[in-house]
Amino acid sequence: MSLIVQKYGGTSVGSIERIHRVAERIVDFHSKGHSLVVVLSAMSGETDRLVKLAHEATSCPDEREMDMLLSTGERVTIALLAMELRGRGINARSFTGRQVGIITNSSHTKARIARITADRIKEAISEGIIPVVAGFQGINEQSDVTTLGRGGSDLTAVALAAALKADRCIIYTDVDGVYTADPNIVPTARRLEKVAYEEMLELASLGAKVLQSRSVEFAARYGVPVEVQSSFKEGQGTLVAKEDADMERVMVAGVTGDRNQAKITILGVPDRPGIAARIFGPVAEANILVDMIIQNVGQGSLTDISFTIPRGDIRKAVDLVQRVVKEIEAKSMTVTESIAKVSLVGVGMRTHSGVAAKMFEVLSRESVNIQMISTSEIKISCVIDEKYLELAIRSLHAAFGLDESPSFVG
Amino acid sequence: MSLIVQKYGGTSVGSIERIHRVAERIVDFHSKGHSLVVVLSAMSGETDRLVKLAHEATSCPDEREMDMLLSTGERVTIALLAMELRGRGINARSFTGRQVGIITNSSHTKARIARITADRIKEAISEGIIPVVAGFQGINEQSDVTTLGRGGSDLTAVALAAALKADRCIIYTDVDGVYTADPNIVPTARRLEKVAYEEMLELASLGAKVLQSRSVEFAARYGVPVEVQSSFKEGQGTLVAKEDADMERVMVAGVTGDRNQAKITILGVPDRPGIAARIFGPVAEANILVDMIIQNVGQGSLTDISFTIPRGDIRKAVDLVQRVVKEIEAKSMTVTESIAKVSLVGVGMRTHSGVAAKMFEVLSRESVNIQMISTSEIKISCVIDEKYLELAIRSLHAAFGLDESPSFVG
Repeated sequence: MSLIVQKYGGTSVGSIERIHRVAERIVDFHSKGHSLVVVLSAMSGETDRLVKLAHEATSCPDEREMDMLLSTGERVTIALLAMELRGRGINARSFTGRQVGIITNSSHTKARIARITADRIKEAISEGIIPVVAGFQGINEQSDVTTLGRGGSDLTAVALAAALKADRCIIYTDVDGVYTADPNIVPTARRLEKVAYEEMLELASLGAKVLQSRSVEFAARYGVPVEVQSSFKEGQGTLVAKEDADMERVMVAGVTGDRNQAKITILGVPDRPGIAARIFGPVAEANILVDMIIQNVGQGSLTDISFTIPRGDIRKAVDLVQRVVKEIEAKSMTVTESIAKVSLVGVGMRTHSGVAAKMFEVLSRESVNIQMISTSEIKISCVIDEKYLELAIRSLHAAFGLDESPSFVG
Repeated sequence: MSLIVQKYGGTSVGSIERIHRVAERIVDFHSKGHSLVVVLSAMSGETDRLVKLAHEATSCPDEREMDMLLSTGERVTIALLAMELRGRGINARSFTGRQVGIITNSSHTKARIARITADRIKEAISEGIIPVVAGFQGINEQSDVTTLGRGGSDLTAVALAAALKADRCIIYTDVDGVYTADPNIVPTARRLEKVAYEEMLELASLGAKVLQSRSVEFAARYGVPVEVQSSFKEGQGTLVAKEDADMERVMVAGVTGDRNQAKITILGVPDRPGIAARIFGPVAEANILVDMIIQNVGQGSLTDISFTIPRGDIRKAVDLVQRVVKEIEAKSMTVTESIAKVSLVGVGMRTHSGVAAKMFEVLSRESVNIQMISTSEIKISCVIDEKYLELAIRSLHAAFGLDESPSFVG
């Protein structure tokens, strides 16, 4: 008999009708003799409704109060599901983040889990009870309610699976797994049966919003096998797990695109030590995440520096950089918003050379100009003109054999 | 500087607009140098919405889960008010029932307060913070959320006022106080400036739904002065406090009517010891509250017994009594639903005789037949034909001088 943690997202519990279907799935699992822990999100739309109320109440809502407000959404769904299960004769019990002992730091609205006591939930499981746990929430050492940030219910599920040494954590969502590319862009994209934690992290950070990044980090650290499945149709999903031989034999696991990019170039930067720190120090202090940085080889004593940031931070960044340009006596700055990033991800890159060369060749064949390049052990990203993004993704998807069933290149 | 507990009901916090007005009132109070504790209900309609969801989920919702569900409503309003106050520069903080240490028994959906620790709220007050407390809820010894029953936020406010030894507890509601009669029936009804706890209890139990009965009992036990005020208009309300000389000088404080009555008569009951127990034992076991009982003087060995119960329990009661009629070999039973109870309430009755006689005379003058009578120290009730209820209330209101300003009869 195995212990399984299941997590259902907001759309899966978005109405009483859908909660009925979740209850049926749980009854089915339960009848197979598995021990279960269920983690729920708030009904889809509920968190937005509460956020709207808060902003009607005051322009800049206090974050502790925001957590008190937002944590109610999950309490509603766990109570509804638990009472429905009990109505069907299943011994289920709702538990809040506090009641299962999810202790966090005090960073309200984006708290990090410090530890999980889980005594009460262990006791419940040993008594044959199905705990139905409120995702997304915990308490700090002062016993104030905290929340774990958007998508935090995934983290609750993975962290509980780790604390309970569960055999598997299944994340039910509105897609049936992780794909080799966005199926809206690449109709021939395939669902991956297995993906390594590191790949999933890169895919998540690149905008494939199937799993919250922090939950993948957590799963990797504690070795929790996570399965992504559709809550609307039966069938296989994608298993996110430790890297294995099969994964390594595939050169590229997936292709992703990211439009949330903007490029700032500072022209005529005096080429002297410490200049990079004077530029990127203030940017980091303003909590703007710099992704890629390129410094041209200097001609004489002047050089150009380009870097990319999230598009939403562009205004804040421009103000800062303009000041820096004056201070360091650079010539000028330019801003480009019409860029995008296309990336190949795969643990197979560690053992296969030539991925980068092939990527450049494919893009060149389609006359897509590469503006910036960055590489890591398992990822290659190119910044290109935004208008070529779909073309680039489709071409790379085909060129690396992702349209067909997995092509082992070992 | 005094410490005041204020409680705002569901209609007072029914929208963001209304929460704004509550915030303004609090800012105003605060600026006068009072220490404040604010207790809130859920937004009006929210509890009904949640109850509806629960009944859509399952036909007979589990009560522990119901409490988990319903307790979210108050958390929303306390968070919204606290963030709004903080936005206005007031150091407010929301606290749940658990956080202020309201410990109850485990009777979910109708829990009774066992004790209040209040450490955290005392600390907050001493730091100049305005605690905004979720009404209606507490936790049991297992740390599960419990609720105090409909109107339980009044009880939270009064109980906190007692625990904090507050100078006053103000209940803001949609009426501006307690009246000598229902103004819908008696246009000349007057607002009472002061009413004794005992009077308020009788008035509440008789259907004047201004304050929850248990909160009045609690206030009486701990001597908490409670003021009922309108949250929509400025001005005086009604003070509910210990009986004093002024109150005793008024013969009758108010007249109330109650239509939620039904009468069952058992005819031809064998007049022997133990017969009453055999009738009312099963009725009590079925949790049916018997109000008045009359046993006619027997003629020979047979007697008739009449009693009144809440109209909603009539079907349940009839089934029971029919069985009893057979068992005790009584002749038959009759049921009358078209009755009502009219009552006079006033601590002045303790010191003034002749109130009952005058009441009977007034009703007789209007040709209203009295079917049953019951009296207590501070109340006289008559059961009459329902169709005469308004007439009876208006005649008694006038006859006892309640139309004018208080008439001292001492």
